[in-house]
Amino acid sequence: MDLVNHQFRLAARPTGMVGREHFDYVEEPLPELEDGQVLVKIDYISLDPAMRGWMAEGRSYVPPVQIGEVMRAATAGEILGSKSDKLVVGDKVSGWLGVQEYAVCDAGAVFKVDADTVSLSKYVGALGMPGMTAYFGLLEIGAPKEGETVVVSGAAGAVGSLVGQIAKLKGCRVVGIAGGPEKCGWIVDELGFDAAIDYKGEDVGQALRKHCPEGIDVYFDNVGGEILDAALARLARGARVVICGAISQYNNLENMRGPSNYMSLLVNRARMEGFVVIDYMGRMAEAMGDMGAWIAEGKLIAREDFVEGFDSFPDALAKLFAGENVGKLVLALGGD
Amino acid sequence: MDLVNHQFRLAARPTGMVGREHFDYVEEPLPELEDGQVLVKIDYISLDPAMRGWMAEGRSYVPPVQIGEVMRAATAGEILGSKSDKLVVGDKVSGWLGVQEYAVCDAGAVFKVDADTVSLSKYVGALGMPGMTAYFGLLEIGAPKEGETVVVSGAAGAVGSLVGQIAKLKGCRVVGIAGGPEKCGWIVDELGFDAAIDYKGEDVGQALRKHCPEGIDVYFDNVGGEILDAALARLARGARVVICGAISQYNNLENMRGPSNYMSLLVNRARMEGFVVIDYMGRMAEAMGDMGAWIAEGKLIAREDFVEGFDSFPDALAKLFAGENVGKLVLALGGD
Repeated sequence: MDLVNHQFRLAARPTGMVGREHFDYVEEPLPELEDGQVLVKIDYISLDPAMRGWMAEGRSYVPPVQIGEVMRAATAGEILGSKSDKLVVGDKVSGWLGVQEYAVCDAGAVFKVDADTVSLSKYVGALGMPGMTAYFGLLEIGAPKEGETVVVSGAAGAVGSLVGQIAKLKGCRVVGIAGGPEKCGWIVDELGFDAAIDYKGEDVGQALRKHCPEGIDVYFDNVGGEILDAALARLARGARVVICGAISQYNNLENMRGPSNYMSLLVNRARMEGFVVIDYMGRMAEAMGDMGAWIAEGKLIAREDFVEGFDSFPDALAKLFAGENVGKLVLALGGD
Repeated sequence: MDLVNHQFRLAARPTGMVGREHFDYVEEPLPELEDGQVLVKIDYISLDPAMRGWMAEGRSYVPPVQIGEVMRAATAGEILGSKSDKLVVGDKVSGWLGVQEYAVCDAGAVFKVDADTVSLSKYVGALGMPGMTAYFGLLEIGAPKEGETVVVSGAAGAVGSLVGQIAKLKGCRVVGIAGGPEKCGWIVDELGFDAAIDYKGEDVGQALRKHCPEGIDVYFDNVGGEILDAALARLARGARVVICGAISQYNNLENMRGPSNYMSLLVNRARMEGFVVIDYMGRMAEAMGDMGAWIAEGKLIAREDFVEGFDSFPDALAKLFAGENVGKLVLALGGD
């Protein structure tokens, strides 16, 4: 094989909005396979809000991507070559292979997936990190009980759309917060949320008062900022606030806005708790079993929003932070 | 009896710092005792940061004090007259009788205390609301384990000084944050804290790095603002942040500062939780048993800072918010 690989490598750490100027587009030949290694052709690259954090310097739950390193990303693809007895050519796999077209890696760096019952791209979505995040974040940290009111922000996004549907499957009343009538219509009409709040067109505080007359029992936050504050102001007694992300703040890290209504935690004997999905990797089979079955049975809709072409990566990332995707944003590298 | 009563009644809701202008000083005759009532001569009035919240309008864990109402306060005193078979003249009692010299109330509105083994004033301090707050807030919400690092702000105050000592009794390493060398010296030399940080003279973030090299396991927050942010930045994995108060913000409620480092909860899989001590009133005997025994055995120092004279109430309140007290601030009304 004489393949040429293309990669996006981190060129500079963004201070504000992320753009093409923060990446180097690199072309390089693929190395020869060594014993135990496989060659993966990457078909799908996941675009996740967490990427913004990985590009920043400093202590977090994973080390930052170093300048010059291939940008970190979850991927799914196919084995093109193997010097391992664990995987054969044609196997579908998923793993953290980064923003590139091909990868040569140890066979243990990827895991084989069943792409017949559930499509391959779902392994970077509902059956990948976003799915595990929704599943464990809601059920373990939010711990909703039947009949409770669950509110989720970023409700039309990869994680939020799953959180709301899982909460519905558990018998909760679910209110989603999303931007624009298209997203709001989708989560109510297609996903079965009880109500949607369009934060671009409505006063979120007023709408929460209307849709959560008894207060919020579980608030799953993907966005931070003003929406987190509005939700804190509507907590029910004993509420749980799940801190999953803060996408509204990621491009403004120097001037991070804290939740000024946090004293509502005191008044309402409530809790705000963070989590990192990698802590639950040991229980991934449990979540994938449930989620896979729900998808197969048509109980869970795992919509994807594909951006085509490897070169589109920086634009796709900008689309993510502009909140333009509906469902899981995925970069599709196209056929051979 | 022909007693004249003096009271401080709420005259106006403060927007900034609280002062004498927010109270009316009222003189009025005491009503005749009716059946089931007692006449209490109030000896001690508690000055608590929570008073600032009770003066504000709006939803909280208790209704606000109404304009024209006697200012709410915990008190301790002596029965001067009784038309109840539950209490006799000379009994020492504690209850929420408000900022006044005398009170006529139902016998059930106060409870009889043992002022022989522990002095009467302690029933508005270590054996009153501040003591219960420290005990249940630390042990139930903070849930420190032996060997863990506990940090408390407002560490020379009524609640903070008890929190640190209880944590020491439970085998923790304790770091207190207080303002000025006198307070810092006291909590280390007299109370046995392992270290003190003078937020007026030191960079709190740097000092926390020095004194908590492995991070903070339990942070008990009485102050909010910049100190809360500095503590969040130093959390250990799995940390618990107890939200007890935010005295630095109480006189600036319109412009409440939220903790901009709250995403540290995510990175560190940590929890921030509020509580209200009145939820634990059913378990008060348990706490009073422990606290009373620790005080009697000399294991717990419950220092009091007395301001003399009923008329001094507004000045004493200002002293509280200026952070000038060491230990529990109490208004002492003086002998007969």
